[in-house]
Amino acid sequence: MNQFFNLKEDLVTDAIDGVLEVSGGKLARLDGYPHIKVVMRADWDKSGVALISGGGSGHEPAHAGFVGRGMLTAVVCGDVFASPTVDAVLAGILAVTGKEGCLLIVKNYTGDRLNFGLAAERARAFGLKVEVVVVDDDIALPDLPQPRGVAGTLFVHKIAGAAAEAGESLDAVADTARAVIDSVASIGMSLDTCTVPGSEKEDRIAAGMAELGLGIHGEAGAQQVPFETAKSAMDMVLGRLTPTISNGSFVALLNNLGSTTPLEMSVLANELATSPNAENIKFVIGPAPLMTSLNMHGFSVSVLPVNKGWQKALESDVEMHAWPGMVELQPITIEPLPDGLSPIKPIPSKNTRVKALIESCCDLLISAESELNELDAKSGDGDTGSTLSTAARALKESLDRMPLADLTQLFRAVGNELSQTMGGSSGVILAIFFSAVGDACAGGKTTTSALLIGLERISQVGGAKVGHRTMIDALQPALTELPKGLKAAADAARSGADNTATIGRAKAGRAAYVPEENLLGNNDPGAEAVAKLFEGLAARINID
Amino acid sequence: MNQFFNLKEDLVTDAIDGVLEVSGGKLARLDGYPHIKVVMRADWDKSGVALISGGGSGHEPAHAGFVGRGMLTAVVCGDVFASPTVDAVLAGILAVTGKEGCLLIVKNYTGDRLNFGLAAERARAFGLKVEVVVVDDDIALPDLPQPRGVAGTLFVHKIAGAAAEAGESLDAVADTARAVIDSVASIGMSLDTCTVPGSEKEDRIAAGMAELGLGIHGEAGAQQVPFETAKSAMDMVLGRLTPTISNGSFVALLNNLGSTTPLEMSVLANELATSPNAENIKFVIGPAPLMTSLNMHGFSVSVLPVNKGWQKALESDVEMHAWPGMVELQPITIEPLPDGLSPIKPIPSKNTRVKALIESCCDLLISAESELNELDAKSGDGDTGSTLSTAARALKESLDRMPLADLTQLFRAVGNELSQTMGGSSGVILAIFFSAVGDACAGGKTTTSALLIGLERISQVGGAKVGHRTMIDALQPALTELPKGLKAAADAARSGADNTATIGRAKAGRAAYVPEENLLGNNDPGAEAVAKLFEGLAARINID
Repeated sequence: MNQFFNLKEDLVTDAIDGVLEVSGGKLARLDGYPHIKVVMRADWDKSGVALISGGGSGHEPAHAGFVGRGMLTAVVCGDVFASPTVDAVLAGILAVTGKEGCLLIVKNYTGDRLNFGLAAERARAFGLKVEVVVVDDDIALPDLPQPRGVAGTLFVHKIAGAAAEAGESLDAVADTARAVIDSVASIGMSLDTCTVPGSEKEDRIAAGMAELGLGIHGEAGAQQVPFETAKSAMDMVLGRLTPTISNGSFVALLNNLGSTTPLEMSVLANELATSPNAENIKFVIGPAPLMTSLNMHGFSVSVLPVNKGWQKALESDVEMHAWPGMVELQPITIEPLPDGLSPIKPIPSKNTRVKALIESCCDLLISAESELNELDAKSGDGDTGSTLSTAARALKESLDRMPLADLTQLFRAVGNELSQTMGGSSGVILAIFFSAVGDACAGGKTTTSALLIGLERISQVGGAKVGHRTMIDALQPALTELPKGLKAAADAARSGADNTATIGRAKAGRAAYVPEENLLGNNDPGAEAVAKLFEGLAARINID
Repeated sequence: MNQFFNLKEDLVTDAIDGVLEVSGGKLARLDGYPHIKVVMRADWDKSGVALISGGGSGHEPAHAGFVGRGMLTAVVCGDVFASPTVDAVLAGILAVTGKEGCLLIVKNYTGDRLNFGLAAERARAFGLKVEVVVVDDDIALPDLPQPRGVAGTLFVHKIAGAAAEAGESLDAVADTARAVIDSVASIGMSLDTCTVPGSEKEDRIAAGMAELGLGIHGEAGAQQVPFETAKSAMDMVLGRLTPTISNGSFVALLNNLGSTTPLEMSVLANELATSPNAENIKFVIGPAPLMTSLNMHGFSVSVLPVNKGWQKALESDVEMHAWPGMVELQPITIEPLPDGLSPIKPIPSKNTRVKALIESCCDLLISAESELNELDAKSGDGDTGSTLSTAARALKESLDRMPLADLTQLFRAVGNELSQTMGGSSGVILAIFFSAVGDACAGGKTTTSALLIGLERISQVGGAKVGHRTMIDALQPALTELPKGLKAAADAARSGADNTATIGRAKAGRAAYVPEENLLGNNDPGAEAVAKLFEGLAARINID
């Protein structure tokens, strides 16, 4: 798998340099690359308790993203998923610790415990006051003697950070950190493994499965479970937290484990906010990437009871963009639709022949859905068939409300229906088309002339003409030939549609951004839809 | 590909609800789901110029993430990659537009142009003042008559947003927006296509290739190029922008297109900050996901010249977390290493036999690298072999500096060397081991006794004993049998290592988090390394 880095050996130092360069001068680093990778506040004067965290890299924005006033004073970064050395941690401690001492916030992994623990010993030998707290918030394996530290660590950084910023003593800050650690619980779920830079991806999780209770270093999850929906995923995760959150008020930290899209994270936030298992969750931090596992496609939820002091600490503003802030969960405010939106409803009327004709058109488009999608995938986003068939289904359902006996009103009503149910440019183009046809009919034009007037209108608005590789390439010849009958119109549409396969450069629509080689040999999907429609109608009329 | 959503039809409304629920009451929506998806400021009183944007979904945090004081007043969301309908846009306009009028900020796609354009017409028929600007910042295809609107749109939102917030008139705000649009240029690169929810992933980009000049709707990039490194990728992207940024001072917006990890984005930020092509780039926004394309693994750079007014507008604070702020690019501050870090350097001395023995040990570990990595991949993160061989290589290189003739000093020096060059828990455990062995030698113990004392020490610190499935399972029997000779020690190590394959539950180290079925039948990689070492040494001694 390609990834955006240079030499694997330089990955972490390159990334740290990037963080420093865009920090606006707020961060500095210690000398000593590559073995010593310490990021620290540039403005730190050692006047208060220093907070130091860190561990293996690959969890960004943790930890360097949280260095700044009100959170961490310095972080010691290891290579990807590898603890920093004792010397690196010691360097970090010596660099930022003054007479008030420092607190090391360590996640419960053997390597981190050993390296931070030994560095603390060595620093104490220098006469420094050093306290160590170990975060073990993971509840994936409840009987584990040594639970891992995962995203719940952020609560410790923020609350202990606020205490240190408020000038509390090392003992007080450490006590606060330990109280948070005693109360926090986290669990995550992932749909795929992470890819360690320079390594092959491990295909451990089958399609349709997820790992529940995963670690953040590529280690296998506690169990594999079937994945169904965002709701079932969040229910499963919250279900594990239920014993923890059964009483009192809680804040939930919703963490993106790496490559989950903002769209998916918002869906998960909605599930979190609306789940009956989450009724005691009053505040939310995120959704945001806080403690990631490289590009893992997953999320985790960490919960902490809120008391007044912790709430204030979590709400207090910090400058680091990686910290998303905490908000109170609130019901959604829905404003009424403004007046003036609804067009006047047409008076329904019946006409069996017209109804059957429209139904035929709709059925033809519905049956062509897959074929048109496939054609569109070659030059666009593969949705022409779906867009048309969705609209066709809605139109069929609306026929009983339609003024089928009044062609002028019918064309306008079809235009309105399409403008309400059909997304994408084809929806509005067809809406303009039918509205204009209806207007022309009202003005006394024949249906055939009216259709040509509608065509002229969409050509104006959309800027497309014959030869631009759009549906107009089939529609214009078809409507021109229509006075000679449906068969002639169908032949003209087919010829026009097939001709689009020879147009290597689209002049309008999304295909205009597609290289020539993807276009040549493939009909434009809009033109093909028109040809299929006229061919289908001609065949049906012949059969009738 | 699994994704975190429920029904495909509900994806966008579920996600919008999630955004609203975690907005802290700052956002509201219009009634009218699912066709009308309008997100708006909850506190808006129609007293100034309203800014309205939107378009297809799948670009989060654009656009709902930028609704708030100082940026957008409302956004109209379509389905994934589909423009909202005319009615939806009209509803948004009518809901937030007062007597000062509104500005529609539209990206240059046919669908958006048509739907927003027609809605503007209809709104004007209600007597509202409506201006429309169309963003076309994409420079992927320089000869294209209608360039696309991509991430540069964010500059328009922020600068026009600041103008509207400052109480400027609709004409002034629209003029500002048009001036920004005339000056902005964007281009992106991606290593993989995005996956549209509910659709199969398209495998369009071969391994080792990238698409340059991509769109944000899954459409193919302008060209495929070989992908080498983050540096070459950024150089290629900046190369396209060079004509634009050759004179003056610029701000660059570094956009994550969806699933690029924060680690990669920071590497790219470093390349942007240090590229000779970017010397006129003085400010940076991001790296951050601003205008994504679902889970696309790519980035884009948008550039804009900075004048005093625009700089102030871009720097002004807004509450929306999706906006990362703008910072001035600054050289990295490197603080000197603190005193007290460097251990006293040992005085080098020679001993051919000891040197050869250590070299043999190192060579044995180096040659076992792949095998140990593969074994570790089954129960851990697959790096045991790499960790050991990296340390072995460093140790070999250090031998000329080592006190080879003084065993006490040598053990301590090896411990120091390993603590400086070897990451992970094994590094520090071995460092403690050798330091303790050296101390014991200094205290007059025989080498064999000293080695057992070192073992006892790491067992204390790391908490592991025989039977816990760690390297101690091989090391303890080997050292116990060592007085009988290397062959006996090797046999004991092998027996101990092989026994770890029957231990289904690790009690220490990362394997403790791994399910039983992944452990049974596989030797612990640490124990296996010890066995290989003793077996290799025994074989070598026999041959010598």
